[in-house]
Amino acid sequence: MKARITVTLKKGVLDPQGKAIEGALGTLGFEGVGGVRQGKVFDVELAHDDKEKAETDLTAMCEQLLANTVIENYAIEIL
Amino acid sequence: MKARITVTLKKGVLDPQGKAIEGALGTLGFEGVGGVRQGKVFDVELAHDDKEKAETDLTAMCEQLLANTVIENYAIEIL
Repeated sequence: MKARITVTLKKGVLDPQGKAIEGALGTLGFEGVGGVRQGKVFDVELAHDDKEKAETDLTAMCEQLLANTVIENYAIEIL
Repeated sequence: MKARITVTLKKGVLDPQGKAIEGALGTLGFEGVGGVRQGKVFDVELAHDDKEKAETDLTAMCEQLLANTVIENYAIEIL
């Protein structure tokens, strides 16, 4: 079973990397870019096929390792 | 208009960061994790509402700045 976890910065948290990308896009001539926020994505392959157990496990993985829940949100998507 | 760009490593490209996460998940007691691959996600805010222009622009952004197309794939999703 495959799953995708997307970790993004919470609203209001400064994102200097996103700001840098926004500046670079402007330099390259792209107009009308109102903002860029960068996040992370994790593609996790699980050995079993139990969807409920997978969701519980993936939530625990996010809480314990993959996301800093003080400043980041995470979304779990079973593929 | 908002869009999400997901950049992931191509199949066959080594991902030491993903391997490290896989090891860390094992250490934390998560069993049955067959593999982890890490990628990046960019949430881009565009000033205009022209979907076709947005797709053209976003593809160009990926090719020129956001993805290294030698080793990375990108996916564009208009939200």
